[in-house]
Amino acid sequence: MIEIQEELLNSLKEIFGDRMKLERDFLEKYSRDETAELEGSMPGIVLFPLTPEEISSVMKLANQYKVPVTPRGAGTGLSGGAIPPSGGIVLSLEKMNRIIEFDEENMMITVEPGVITNEIQKLADRHGLIYGGDPCSSDSSTIGGNVAENAGGNKVLKYGPTGYHVYALEVVLPTGEIVQFGGKRIKDVTGFDMIHLLIGSEGTLGIVTKITLRLLPKPKYSVALLAPFESVEKAIDAVPKLMVKSGTMPSSLEFMDRSSIQSTCKFLNIEFPYSDAGAHLIIEVEGNNKTAVSDDYERIGDICLEEGALEVFVADNRNTREKLWKVRKSIAEALSVYSPVHCMEDVSVPMARIPELIKGAEKIAEKHGLEMLSFGHAGDGNVHVTFVKGDRTEEYWKAHLEPALIELYELARDLGGCISGEHGIGLKRKKYLPIILDESQIRLIKGIKRIFDPNNILNPGKIVDL
Amino acid sequence: MIEIQEELLNSLKEIFGDRMKLERDFLEKYSRDETAELEGSMPGIVLFPLTPEEISSVMKLANQYKVPVTPRGAGTGLSGGAIPPSGGIVLSLEKMNRIIEFDEENMMITVEPGVITNEIQKLADRHGLIYGGDPCSSDSSTIGGNVAENAGGNKVLKYGPTGYHVYALEVVLPTGEIVQFGGKRIKDVTGFDMIHLLIGSEGTLGIVTKITLRLLPKPKYSVALLAPFESVEKAIDAVPKLMVKSGTMPSSLEFMDRSSIQSTCKFLNIEFPYSDAGAHLIIEVEGNNKTAVSDDYERIGDICLEEGALEVFVADNRNTREKLWKVRKSIAEALSVYSPVHCMEDVSVPMARIPELIKGAEKIAEKHGLEMLSFGHAGDGNVHVTFVKGDRTEEYWKAHLEPALIELYELARDLGGCISGEHGIGLKRKKYLPIILDESQIRLIKGIKRIFDPNNILNPGKIVDL
Repeated sequence: MIEIQEELLNSLKEIFGDRMKLERDFLEKYSRDETAELEGSMPGIVLFPLTPEEISSVMKLANQYKVPVTPRGAGTGLSGGAIPPSGGIVLSLEKMNRIIEFDEENMMITVEPGVITNEIQKLADRHGLIYGGDPCSSDSSTIGGNVAENAGGNKVLKYGPTGYHVYALEVVLPTGEIVQFGGKRIKDVTGFDMIHLLIGSEGTLGIVTKITLRLLPKPKYSVALLAPFESVEKAIDAVPKLMVKSGTMPSSLEFMDRSSIQSTCKFLNIEFPYSDAGAHLIIEVEGNNKTAVSDDYERIGDICLEEGALEVFVADNRNTREKLWKVRKSIAEALSVYSPVHCMEDVSVPMARIPELIKGAEKIAEKHGLEMLSFGHAGDGNVHVTFVKGDRTEEYWKAHLEPALIELYELARDLGGCISGEHGIGLKRKKYLPIILDESQIRLIKGIKRIFDPNNILNPGKIVDL
Repeated sequence: MIEIQEELLNSLKEIFGDRMKLERDFLEKYSRDETAELEGSMPGIVLFPLTPEEISSVMKLANQYKVPVTPRGAGTGLSGGAIPPSGGIVLSLEKMNRIIEFDEENMMITVEPGVITNEIQKLADRHGLIYGGDPCSSDSSTIGGNVAENAGGNKVLKYGPTGYHVYALEVVLPTGEIVQFGGKRIKDVTGFDMIHLLIGSEGTLGIVTKITLRLLPKPKYSVALLAPFESVEKAIDAVPKLMVKSGTMPSSLEFMDRSSIQSTCKFLNIEFPYSDAGAHLIIEVEGNNKTAVSDDYERIGDICLEEGALEVFVADNRNTREKLWKVRKSIAEALSVYSPVHCMEDVSVPMARIPELIKGAEKIAEKHGLEMLSFGHAGDGNVHVTFVKGDRTEEYWKAHLEPALIELYELARDLGGCISGEHGIGLKRKKYLPIILDESQIRLIKGIKRIFDPNNILNPGKIVDL
């Protein structure tokens, strides 16, 4: 672990006062994120900056004293991006949580990174607008974390990932400069696309201190369909057909298997129709015209029934829709209560290959004697295959998880997919990166990292080792 | 100019045979693009590769002999990206023009870079799908050029620029490796977002040899409105109001001033309603339900009338709509016939600032005694302010254009905009880049360029000088 020099501590104390924390219980909390199978690592100190200037000072000092800095949002990440593997400084952006400007004329909002994503959605909603990003963690994750990971979620199908909504970033570079990328303009080809390079770079290329997001007109009507199927296979086989045949773009097309639903219903203490069905699909459609939305969901419902759905439930009022989504969005939390030792993956494959992915993953689990459940964003090919320890011994779990993971990643690759669709590489998947990227690609990643961060001081050890 | 060594010529001749051209009339054609005010520069040779392997060999030889390589699509660029400023090799991708795969199941299409963009649109249309990119040059520009420039066009408002549709790229790196970035997966956060770094890098970071694009369900109904206004001011003032008040996202919101329309109608030899009006807006809405689309366009038509439109014409059949778009898409061509000496800009500002941009640009033109016309993508804030020489002397034009340009770029910046929304920096705007990017940003661009291209061999002298 890296020692934090007395002199450096004094300089930081002068800037941060009691927003600098050294107490063990603080450090403990900031040693981990929500990645179930990763061990934490204690930081030397935690800082709570309020301004980009403070962050700039930290980065300059960190470069001078060669101490690593790990930026952190809400700590809800699922690949270890916010864990400080060699100690040093954790820079928590929680207190930079102001909404700076709601610009209705330009349909843009500018926020600090510590704003909870849901706050943005609620504010937009009050003005008849929407923010198109919708990670399942939206009531706990911060928009800064969403940007760092290029978070996906439930509406990527129609609206794209977090990155598609970001038009400007204020960033403190690892070398301390405060830089403004982009602006409230829809189109910009002035130089390389640095904004999309920064988005999803997992806090390794810069610390985002302001984010400008585009908002969109809110569709007047949204309807969610719930379609239970006898088996995972039948539900998943219906997905590509729904996408191609429906002639419309659903805003969501989600999938939950029996284990996911049953443990979540138990966790939420609620009843769910057909909770013993093999799997359910949730399909949401939206629009400004009631008849148009009805036409869409009726067509989609018919396709579900043709493909073997046991029933199609229509949730056309806000209350029922929210209840349905509550189940979908609580799966990860239920999992962490009932199966705290598990490994949640987010492999992503071409939409038409999802049936092969799920069948292959089931075979892998069976081969290695592991329990498996699956849920996720079936419409965009991003499924949370999750291996669960259950009552297996610690030794068994440790010995069998890694080979199963490698086979899953290789399967995703062979189907034309990748090892992470929305959770990122971080610490968790770093050693598996060569399964999907070749030597030249890894050389370019390392080269770009060095250009931004010559001393490898900002979030080192994530994505790649230099 | 860089000399091409005899030995290098022999090696290339062996690979390319009669797909290597040295004849003066060939070289002449490949010395320029469609940027009106840029002088050409003769290449030493032009090569027509058919495979990524051939391109890889060229890059390896170019690095060995230190000869610059300038990739080129259809040569329709508007910032000099395809001009070889110091001679060397021009690599024309025209013959790599195959549609490799139409994957209906995944709603993706994979093409070579030399495919004309319109061919993709036509093929998608035959399958009830659309490609969301729609540059005005779509019947002459290639998809490879669109990717290199991150081309915008008429539908960015709703569908985003070219980059939002690209999910995989096969690229020959400047150092010769053939690399596959991305795949037919909607979500991918496996490492840095290299795809969006390559898109819009103007052929300075790699030569794209395959492109996979996502297609979308084709809306069943499209209606275009044409709204003439008394003055540019009245038309432009209506734009932000249309965007905020309509409650829907038009697929296009275009603007043409009187000079643009009159010269284009003369060029096409057609009549146009209210052709003496100060300016026209074209607004297109689309959807799957006839009533919903009617509701949308009626609301938009009402807002136009409230904002002072002289009339609102509805083009609700394909024929009339195509005629309308023909005018819009032919403005640049008409300009090059009637005003061959001109300077077409594509500054981009926040939507609500468009009125200030146009008024400011008019003042700049007046101050410098220049003729000005304007047209473009008003809904997304990207307007083609165009200075025209008219009957001014060559000396006058040369003396007054540059200060006017600088003032225009500064105005765009001060309104929160940038100097290029879709045409790129290339040769044309390179020296103006510091108006909008600071030292750190330019340092990062140069650093990234060096990581990809250590010998500065691929399209050198574009965007920045190393």
